[in-house]
Amino acid sequence: MIIVLERGATEPQIDQISKYLTSRGIRFERMNGRLQTVLGIVGSTGGYDIASLATMPGVQEVVRVSSPYRLSSRSAHPEDTVITMPDGTRIGGTAPSIVIAGPCSVESEDQVRRTAEIVRKAGVRFMRGGAFKPRTSPYSFQGLGFDGLELLKKVGEEFGMYIVTEAMEPAQVPAIAEYADIVQVGSRNMQNFPLLKQVGSIEKPVLLKRGAASTVEEWLMAAEYILAGGNNNVILCERGIRTFEPSLRFTPDLAAVPVVKKLSHLPIIVDPSHATGRREFVSSIARGAIAVGADGLIVEVHPDPDRALSDGAQSLTFELFEEMMGELVRVADAVNRPLLVEPLHKKDGAFVRKPSSVQQ
Amino acid sequence: MIIVLERGATEPQIDQISKYLTSRGIRFERMNGRLQTVLGIVGSTGGYDIASLATMPGVQEVVRVSSPYRLSSRSAHPEDTVITMPDGTRIGGTAPSIVIAGPCSVESEDQVRRTAEIVRKAGVRFMRGGAFKPRTSPYSFQGLGFDGLELLKKVGEEFGMYIVTEAMEPAQVPAIAEYADIVQVGSRNMQNFPLLKQVGSIEKPVLLKRGAASTVEEWLMAAEYILAGGNNNVILCERGIRTFEPSLRFTPDLAAVPVVKKLSHLPIIVDPSHATGRREFVSSIARGAIAVGADGLIVEVHPDPDRALSDGAQSLTFELFEEMMGELVRVADAVNRPLLVEPLHKKDGAFVRKPSSVQQ
Amino acid sequence: MIIVLERGATEPQIDQISKYLTSRGIRFERMNGRLQTVLGIVGSTGGYDIASLATMPGVQEVVRVSSPYRLSSRSAHPEDTVITMPDGTRIGGTAPSIVIAGPCSVESEDQVRRTAEIVRKAGVRFMRGGAFKPRTSPYSFQGLGFDGLELLKKVGEEFGMYIVTEAMEPAQVPAIAEYADIVQVGSRNMQNFPLLKQVGSIEKPVLLKRGAASTVEEWLMAAEYILAGGNNNVILCERGIRTFEPSLRFTPDLAAVPVVKKLSHLPIIVDPSHATGRREFVSSIARGAIAVGADGLIVEVHPDPDRALSDGAQSLTFELFEEMMGELVRVADAVNRPLLVEPLHKKDGAFVRKPSSVQQ
Amino acid sequence: MIIVLERGATEPQIDQISKYLTSRGIRFERMNGRLQTVLGIVGSTGGYDIASLATMPGVQEVVRVSSPYRLSSRSAHPEDTVITMPDGTRIGGTAPSIVIAGPCSVESEDQVRRTAEIVRKAGVRFMRGGAFKPRTSPYSFQGLGFDGLELLKKVGEEFGMYIVTEAMEPAQVPAIAEYADIVQVGSRNMQNFPLLKQVGSIEKPVLLKRGAASTVEEWLMAAEYILAGGNNNVILCERGIRTFEPSLRFTPDLAAVPVVKKLSHLPIIVDPSHATGRREFVSSIARGAIAVGADGLIVEVHPDPDRALSDGAQSLTFELFEEMMGELVRVADAVNRPLLVEPLHKKDGAFVRKPSSVQQ
Repeated sequence: MIIVLERGATEPQIDQISKYLTSRGIRFERMNGRLQTVLGIVGSTGGYDIASLATMPGVQEVVRVSSPYRLSSRSAHPEDTVITMPDGTRIGGTAPSIVIAGPCSVESEDQVRRTAEIVRKAGVRFMRGGAFKPRTSPYSFQGLGFDGLELLKKVGEEFGMYIVTEAMEPAQVPAIAEYADIVQVGSRNMQNFPLLKQVGSIEKPVLLKRGAASTVEEWLMAAEYILAGGNNNVILCERGIRTFEPSLRFTPDLAAVPVVKKLSHLPIIVDPSHATGRREFVSSIARGAIAVGADGLIVEVHPDPDRALSDGAQSLTFELFEEMMGELVRVADAVNRPLLVEPLHKKDGAFVRKPSSVQQ
Repeated sequence: MIIVLERGATEPQIDQISKYLTSRGIRFERMNGRLQTVLGIVGSTGGYDIASLATMPGVQEVVRVSSPYRLSSRSAHPEDTVITMPDGTRIGGTAPSIVIAGPCSVESEDQVRRTAEIVRKAGVRFMRGGAFKPRTSPYSFQGLGFDGLELLKKVGEEFGMYIVTEAMEPAQVPAIAEYADIVQVGSRNMQNFPLLKQVGSIEKPVLLKRGAASTVEEWLMAAEYILAGGNNNVILCERGIRTFEPSLRFTPDLAAVPVVKKLSHLPIIVDPSHATGRREFVSSIARGAIAVGADGLIVEVHPDPDRALSDGAQSLTFELFEEMMGELVRVADAVNRPLLVEPLHKKDGAFVRKPSSVQQ
Repeated sequence: MIIVLERGATEPQIDQISKYLTSRGIRFERMNGRLQTVLGIVGSTGGYDIASLATMPGVQEVVRVSSPYRLSSRSAHPEDTVITMPDGTRIGGTAPSIVIAGPCSVESEDQVRRTAEIVRKAGVRFMRGGAFKPRTSPYSFQGLGFDGLELLKKVGEEFGMYIVTEAMEPAQVPAIAEYADIVQVGSRNMQNFPLLKQVGSIEKPVLLKRGAASTVEEWLMAAEYILAGGNNNVILCERGIRTFEPSLRFTPDLAAVPVVKKLSHLPIIVDPSHATGRREFVSSIARGAIAVGADGLIVEVHPDPDRALSDGAQSLTFELFEEMMGELVRVADAVNRPLLVEPLHKKDGAFVRKPSSVQQ
Repeated sequence: MIIVLERGATEPQIDQISKYLTSRGIRFERMNGRLQTVLGIVGSTGGYDIASLATMPGVQEVVRVSSPYRLSSRSAHPEDTVITMPDGTRIGGTAPSIVIAGPCSVESEDQVRRTAEIVRKAGVRFMRGGAFKPRTSPYSFQGLGFDGLELLKKVGEEFGMYIVTEAMEPAQVPAIAEYADIVQVGSRNMQNFPLLKQVGSIEKPVLLKRGAASTVEEWLMAAEYILAGGNNNVILCERGIRTFEPSLRFTPDLAAVPVVKKLSHLPIIVDPSHATGRREFVSSIARGAIAVGADGLIVEVHPDPDRALSDGAQSLTFELFEEMMGELVRVADAVNRPLLVEPLHKKDGAFVRKPSSVQQ
């Protein structure tokens, strides 16, 4: 924090501000210029709401000069965080870019298995699927709950895929973490602080979606809650922001990828399905995401999107998904960050989680 | 829903769309024009994601023509909802506009009592105060928890004031509802659906703040969750929206007041403290809110804002608060909606909740 | 400008920055703290783009601490600017709030005269009307041009009303200023710098509408162009900003009124017609504008809004206009800023511009 | 347009609406459903503001079902517009993606020549440079004017490069079109309708930048003005939109590229320099733009960005520019849309405009 005093600030005014800070245990130093005086705060502000200083007589402006997040900042942790899954598959840093694919909601075993088969054949190692669904309307399908999780886990094991699924309330987290390999915190819950604290206490990686109207700073502050709880394995996920432009459901903020890379060490992926809301735009935004440097993607795929119980309009058909994967491989190579594409392996009649050949 | 078909839509295409609808149990009727055909959907869409129809061959556009909320809509409930507190004080409809005032966070008994005394003397019957605080930073003061609730309840009873306080997670709701007269759902939790369902099951009125980047429609959908749970006593609260304008913390959306009044029967109040973030602008926005037709206000007041543990910059001093109340009384009279200002009564040495003399 | 150096900035780095500034003739002073050094720039930056300094080695952040506008700032001109019309009618400061009313576009003599008669009877002294229309579509009605101006001038003189009309390009300004009493710069032209320079060179007051996506700072910078050209009579006009909320055409930013009052000495009025886009919301926003402290209003009125060639949906009928005026008088009195309502006078068979009796 | 009537609309109401339409010469047809009636408007609405119909009794909603732009729409012109420069270089369609590079402002002959040499060596055929500058502040450098144009033209001819430069007011357009090969309409002038009409009357292609807060629809309507004037050679340019996110100057809306490609036949390029405002993010957004399918890029390059008179912070150094070009070639190949990179040719001691070898 830097407190810029008015040009005409009087000594009694400066004295009063100094006393204010000292009485709260806030250390500062005074820098006297010829025309203007500046007070630089050294160290912590002790939880006090320093912004309110701006209203004191003699103060021109209070300027924050350090970022409010610490553990999630690049300056605190210069190396990229790389998350290692049980079989050695890595996310972030210089590891190959990952793709997470699957249906919006788990609807039936048949739907999940058909989708898993297609995406696994295309080399994908991570399957998404919602069992508890945050729905804008109380009258919309709310998910299969734990039955859905059972299905996901079963099919995931069958095909050697990691499961990514969402937790909506703190009390659910421990149970969901039993099923999920990566626990998702959804966009609407980005500032659900009790939930953030809860996922901060588990061992599994957390996929933290950006709130549709949250700044990058607020997002990194939300990650800070998880890191401060002891869980360092946070993957950020950009999923479109709310702007004035109505042609898509949200505006994909691809620039957030290099911005986050500069400010933080955490891996960041992009969700082109929610960001656009329409399947015809998913592939192009996916290519753009890889080109700007994302560590991966999460996309919705459905065997019969027009019959989907949720998000049908934005789910890729199998054909579109396969076409997209081909394009992504080429763009990923062009930016020297190959896509993780691991062929399907069967051993003794079962698919197995085999370390990727693409990994270095 | 109205499905507008392309001018050149063929009969086989129309047939396929018809089958799609019929197979999902969705009733519709066909309106044939000379140049164009339109399908009007009758009744419920059964939870199906009809938007995905827009991608079917022959469809030009899918247009939603009815609002997605039902219980919270004005058309379903033409009369204003009026909430009646235990002593007969009413909120909404033609009842006098209310003021809810108090500190952002409960910090100490002395702070709460001094504030209560001032606001109660000014005629205020509702005291706000946070015991569980949603804070952007994990390093900020997180509230006194249940100790804070005890304090609020004690002081509230002493001064004959109703207590308004926030619940942050579903599991807390029953306990908080023991202390609070009105349970607040904060802005960041507007789409925390498990929390909405939980407050839908209690008896106490709920103050539902608008998400800083939520549309009025999403807000009424959030209210719908509470009403659908059986709790009809929802008070909406506009608290500023996120826009490109940086001069204030948020942009107060005062137009949301008449818009909500048209679309819904629920009472709506305004929070000028969070909407502006700076105390010097609170009074003018409060006057504006009353002038556009709000059913009340919620404002932050603190005996020593510069020492506040949260939101000091936006809390009114006692002097500014009293000045504002005087102005509000005049504006409220000018729009024929007097402010509820009930003098402090003592009976047998104690303050009592006495029905307001201003009420009709 | 304050240049905050990194904690570890080296002397050679500081030396390089110092040379950079000195070589451009920029004066600065160095403030040494124990941990951190700050360079404060004294006086002008000579047109250099100082923001680019942020990329130099050793620099942590470049912070602008003074507003970029000078002539339009409150600090440069602490007293309110009050604009005096030829007959003594004043706008701004403590003068009564004004109302400017009339049709969106001039369509016919009958339309203008009927409207003028009604609004003048209600005490209004300023008539708006567009002769050159900025239309989003090239296929929409583009205005009557100079024929429209003739009509406005003629009817304005007949009823003793001042004319407010828009100029769209620099070359038109001198001719339009012959007809208009106040020349309007429209929202889409707020940063049409050649036009701003041109209206800066005329004698007539300028009504400068805020761009729908312009910050208050950009707006005051646009005013600065006019003031820098020598024309001090600028009236700012808030007309709704572009946000994510779709229920109205724009979101009226009523908070901009007190914000502008703090930052600038210029009068500010509000346009509730364009801000809402729907006549049913015009009156409430007009009341709100007066309550937050606006110096006046500009509203659209049409004898038959459903037949209007432009903006019919937001134009008030005569009945709604008269009802609104009654409400505004009460709200204006409540905030101690009476509305300028001057009865129609006829002398020797003609209406005359007579100094208002409400003025102090 | 489709007029959806209320479920309870009465025959007299429908009659009144019918008369309203008929009296304005608007043809419609009535589609009777069992529960609800819909009126479909056939053909033109004759310039009438049909939106105002929404306020008539019996009307539930007025829904626009066709786009308001015609000439710029994909449906009116299914094939991509390809612009051919005098030497056969093509822009749009399946032609190689172009790069336009150069300084923000023309400052001196030395600056322009050094920049031209570097970008031309990298294979670039189009040079940007501002001679008339729209500046937010009246105190900032306003450009060299026609002297700057002379410089651009001279250096452009020397190196065999086409010149792209901005026109700010209608009266300037004919003169600027003498110097420029492509005339730019800047972001702030996207809805400067007199300027749009003027550039609609020239022979040279027009680069139309998107307004920072303009929707894609408004942008295509602005293009419509130019096409309606008879100039079909419009290149759209996305340059960042205004959102709540403060980390960059604007938010690059890369999704606008595929959205525009779907709605319109016009070529679209991206400006990563203005979109981000910081040179360190230019390359990644440029890669993203090519990956999502843009027809080209426009970037700022300066021999000494820290000494630039404008936009220094966002201008690439020569080193960064060359590095970016190498990356773009690879990404462009990956999406099967090679970059136009044409080696520098000298003939008889002079550089010549030679048809690109990359073109098909």
